[in-house]
Amino acid sequence: MKVLQVVGYKNSGKTTLTKEIITYYSKKGWKVGTIKNHGHGGIPIGLHDTDSEQHRRAGSKIAGVIGENILQLSQEEWEVETIISIYELLGIELLVLEGFKRLEYPKLILIKDRKEIQLLTSLSNIIALISKTEKELVGLQLPVFDNKDIEQICNCISMHILKENDDE
Amino acid sequence: MKVLQVVGYKNSGKTTLTKEIITYYSKKGWKVGTIKNHGHGGIPIGLHDTDSEQHRRAGSKIAGVIGENILQLSQEEWEVETIISIYELLGIELLVLEGFKRLEYPKLILIKDRKEIQLLTSLSNIIALISKTEKELVGLQLPVFDNKDIEQICNCISMHILKENDDE
Repeated sequence: MKVLQVVGYKNSGKTTLTKEIITYYSKKGWKVGTIKNHGHGGIPIGLHDTDSEQHRRAGSKIAGVIGENILQLSQEEWEVETIISIYELLGIELLVLEGFKRLEYPKLILIKDRKEIQLLTSLSNIIALISKTEKELVGLQLPVFDNKDIEQICNCISMHILKENDDE
Repeated sequence: MKVLQVVGYKNSGKTTLTKEIITYYSKKGWKVGTIKNHGHGGIPIGLHDTDSEQHRRAGSKIAGVIGENILQLSQEEWEVETIISIYELLGIELLVLEGFKRLEYPKLILIKDRKEIQLLTSLSNIIALISKTEKELVGLQLPVFDNKDIEQICNCISMHILKENDDE
């Protein structure tokens, strides 16, 4: 399974770009999976104080509930590596992680303006920058794409991650 | 991984009994996992019309979101066998399924009154009945326990499923 990360600050367009990448590769026949990092705080997701939470409090390591198309699994702490292994088990071929910037997988970085360039110095394995302020970023020795250039962005992903050349 | 089912009609006490079983085995050092069948309709669980649903509509086969201790995975259709394989991957040793009465795993059946006995004729792999109306059920050639007799119920589970004799 190949893994790609889409990283950027809040409201930098991560979800929009992730969706474009999903659509591009699923149309090419890849089994694409995605994980979004909801993070701590904010809106709580899912069920709380429900039967499955009761299971967990009773001592269940993994308390799950399945309803229609959603499987919800609770445990005290999730390692991202564990979650990735679940996607691998499920036969996913390309996994796109939205967020999780501290992980080591190949990354696209969304940059809204110059102030955000500090992001680049602290992150590993960057394959391209996505930015409208392209010219200002010249000299960074990384490819820079406009967020509308999905074909070019995905060609870059294909070359770096999938070791394929879409133009061939 | 050993699998047990706790089956019964609505409000028959499935969750209470499941919790007792979780507590019993987790105290004995088993890594217990649980799955509750939320079923169709009723209260929708989790996130809808959110970023992860957007991922799914864009073509993601498995769209996930992780937030605090909850991992939520969406896909068009879940097979119970797939979910069980996730628990196995996660190292669970005893999996208790609450509901899913059509599956073939060893089952405890909760019976509130005589009318519910029809449940027994349609289900496979029953190891015991849990009922307060014990005397009326004599002659069914299945062990019958009161729902308060957790020790006895779990001894029965240990013998049938874990092939252990707790009394030894």
